[in-house]
Amino acid sequence: MMSIKQMSFLEKLRSVLPSELIVQDELVLSENSRDFGQLAVEPLQPIAVVFPTQVQQVQQVMRLATEFSIPVISRGAGTGVSGGVHVIGQAVILNLSKMNRIIEIRPDDEIAVVEPGVINQELNIAAAKYGLMYAPDPASYKMSTLGGNIATNAGGLRCAKYGVTRESVLSLDVVLADGRLIRVGKNTFKGVAGYDLTALFTGSEGTLGIVVRAVLRLRYLPVDERDLSLLFPTLEDAVHGVQIIAKATIQPAILELIDHATMQVLDEQYSTSLADAGGAMLLIRLDGYGAMREEEVIRYSFANHNVVVSVEGSSEATQLIEMRRTSRGDTKDDAYRTGEDVAIPKSKMVEYVRRLQKVAKQERVQMRLISHVGDGNLHPTFSVEPNDGSDPLDRLNRVVETSVRLALEMGGTITGEHGVGLIKKDWLPWEQSTEVLQIQKDIKSLLDPSGILNPGKAI
Amino acid sequence: MMSIKQMSFLEKLRSVLPSELIVQDELVLSENSRDFGQLAVEPLQPIAVVFPTQVQQVQQVMRLATEFSIPVISRGAGTGVSGGVHVIGQAVILNLSKMNRIIEIRPDDEIAVVEPGVINQELNIAAAKYGLMYAPDPASYKMSTLGGNIATNAGGLRCAKYGVTRESVLSLDVVLADGRLIRVGKNTFKGVAGYDLTALFTGSEGTLGIVVRAVLRLRYLPVDERDLSLLFPTLEDAVHGVQIIAKATIQPAILELIDHATMQVLDEQYSTSLADAGGAMLLIRLDGYGAMREEEVIRYSFANHNVVVSVEGSSEATQLIEMRRTSRGDTKDDAYRTGEDVAIPKSKMVEYVRRLQKVAKQERVQMRLISHVGDGNLHPTFSVEPNDGSDPLDRLNRVVETSVRLALEMGGTITGEHGVGLIKKDWLPWEQSTEVLQIQKDIKSLLDPSGILNPGKAI
Repeated sequence: MMSIKQMSFLEKLRSVLPSELIVQDELVLSENSRDFGQLAVEPLQPIAVVFPTQVQQVQQVMRLATEFSIPVISRGAGTGVSGGVHVIGQAVILNLSKMNRIIEIRPDDEIAVVEPGVINQELNIAAAKYGLMYAPDPASYKMSTLGGNIATNAGGLRCAKYGVTRESVLSLDVVLADGRLIRVGKNTFKGVAGYDLTALFTGSEGTLGIVVRAVLRLRYLPVDERDLSLLFPTLEDAVHGVQIIAKATIQPAILELIDHATMQVLDEQYSTSLADAGGAMLLIRLDGYGAMREEEVIRYSFANHNVVVSVEGSSEATQLIEMRRTSRGDTKDDAYRTGEDVAIPKSKMVEYVRRLQKVAKQERVQMRLISHVGDGNLHPTFSVEPNDGSDPLDRLNRVVETSVRLALEMGGTITGEHGVGLIKKDWLPWEQSTEVLQIQKDIKSLLDPSGILNPGKAI
Repeated sequence: MMSIKQMSFLEKLRSVLPSELIVQDELVLSENSRDFGQLAVEPLQPIAVVFPTQVQQVQQVMRLATEFSIPVISRGAGTGVSGGVHVIGQAVILNLSKMNRIIEIRPDDEIAVVEPGVINQELNIAAAKYGLMYAPDPASYKMSTLGGNIATNAGGLRCAKYGVTRESVLSLDVVLADGRLIRVGKNTFKGVAGYDLTALFTGSEGTLGIVVRAVLRLRYLPVDERDLSLLFPTLEDAVHGVQIIAKATIQPAILELIDHATMQVLDEQYSTSLADAGGAMLLIRLDGYGAMREEEVIRYSFANHNVVVSVEGSSEATQLIEMRRTSRGDTKDDAYRTGEDVAIPKSKMVEYVRRLQKVAKQERVQMRLISHVGDGNLHPTFSVEPNDGSDPLDRLNRVVETSVRLALEMGGTITGEHGVGLIKKDWLPWEQSTEVLQIQKDIKSLLDPSGILNPGKAI
């Protein structure tokens, strides 16, 4: 049942926007009520989903939302995994996926100007015509929008070398809660005029404003790419291998750690036999003019280490990287399952995994691990069978909480790249002090005094 | 003459701090009243200079400054060039140069934990023992403090490849205006918990809080370094050369453009004969495993371009890079002189320089140019002889203003790396809208409600 206020809001919205932009079809409402995050609580249905195609329309929605105090959740493809766009109260959805024009690519300036609904991969396809790439590559890059990437400050596989989303965002056009349009940042790689509001909006998960245009830094496509897989006897050996690569001053574009349990799942899915051949695996992509020499150094460094290195020039490692990109190995869909996203100082990697494995074992929870190990970002996945013993969800939750507490104990963070959203909100005070949380709430109040921008999320 | 309020403040300060930390010696007051920025207005004398050695002492200063409403200017070595620490009203100086401990270097995590008074070069010397470096290298790196680098979000020569200061700052301990101590950020390369307060404090020029500890990202020292100098017939050719290098997907660690007027000054200073050999010069440092191949590609690319490339393996280019680092070629100290710091989209480089040269010529102002051309950051230097014609300072100022207006007209920024400070404050509204300026003022009010942190600067 809609309230009179909500009906008045919609009526006024219909008077200023083309009617086809405002959708109340049940299926669309349902699809737009959530992201890929696995929450215990079912999302509510939004009042309506608005699909603006122009900046002015976003401004109109925000003006009316302010006038009628209607919360607004902006979203793109909804590929986030932290429940950042889950509907938890009355809300209108601002779905920006139809604002999907690549406004301009300026190859000589190495920048692109885009609307928020452009799919990450589409920008990369367009940029490739000029020999350029947009570096941040979250696993969802084939589906996720750049607006969503900016809202979560998305990471990805190659960000150890090329930086996370924030490092590629130069300027943003932002519609504020009250409908005003501002431009922050600059069109150049460097610029220090005033406070860094661009970084403030990047990663703010739709709670400070609506990004309607972005100037993004592009980079030249690397001249060479060489993929390697390294099979180690144990996880400890693989982590030690990461240090060997670092000490050789090699900065891979991609450096992924795969644990034995994940190797077993990959074997099931792809009929490989990784798990028999080793206890842990590193997947490495080297790129640029140094790739060939770096490959030589890696092969030489591990020649006497009981490490199985993929055959030179074979496509095996490339296939494994693609398998890794598209899958966390979630095969059994009847299990309770949750994936985590902590980041920890790299030196603590082995200790973290071993202590966590011990707790998982005690609680009879299955644990697998993949990691952007080059920057200490870990994605453990936990699962229990619904019928296996008592309180399976409680046991699952205890292990998940342990994974977060251990990360904080070791000087890490609760979220390396997924964002806080709804799922991690209760953990934020474990990481940040009351004062720091209050400053963020105050900044939120400053930019969104009526609290209508994605309330209850991120901070 | 000190006011009663100021005397009471000092008296109370003396009761809580060791007396030797509070200095009122005329010479020290004078030295601490300004930075390297060339301002028309002479700075005032501060009330006192406090040299804290511990975080608690900084907190005590801020508590009392809040109690007595005494403005506080925090500073390091004072090598800034925007007047960011110039004393323009009553103020106590918080000189952080004695908080200069490298608290910890964790080689396996590739991070350093430092106090704000550590000299940039000292961290690099300490990190080098582990094969690591701190990448941001402002020209002042032998003298400037990391706290000052953070306050201005300093750039440098190698930031096109390795990023500006912000990209190397992971976490900050900040003493707020009222003396509370907070910690923002994380110890890992990636982390998206809450808003990016670390980026907000970085580059805020002492107006939001006092940085008393920083966790900095280190990087492995590159395995190879190769320096090249390229002499081009004209400036246009040199800028075109930059595009050729970019299209070959080569990312130099250093890529500097030197114009003909600067080459003449270098010839005078170092008895070289650059100016006869070409019309503009690029200085290039290639590093890492790809350096050798990249050098080959550059040599091949320019083989038929009427370009004089330095002899392979010679130290000529390395010497030129050092000359560039330590000098803008300011020889004649009787001239009125000012240096600028705009950044523009790279494709506009030639147009910018030619239009600016034209105006400089009309106004009979000498102009030289060096540029971190890899990221579009230009440092034109303008000078006039005091006795050459009428209104020399007016003519100088008109050219400087033109340099800024042209940069903005071309989509650039008024400051690529020096910061706004005092000198560029009047220009900030040329670049940023009233709304954006107001948001920054509101954030400032939030964190510094009595406005005692470096008032009148940066925003």
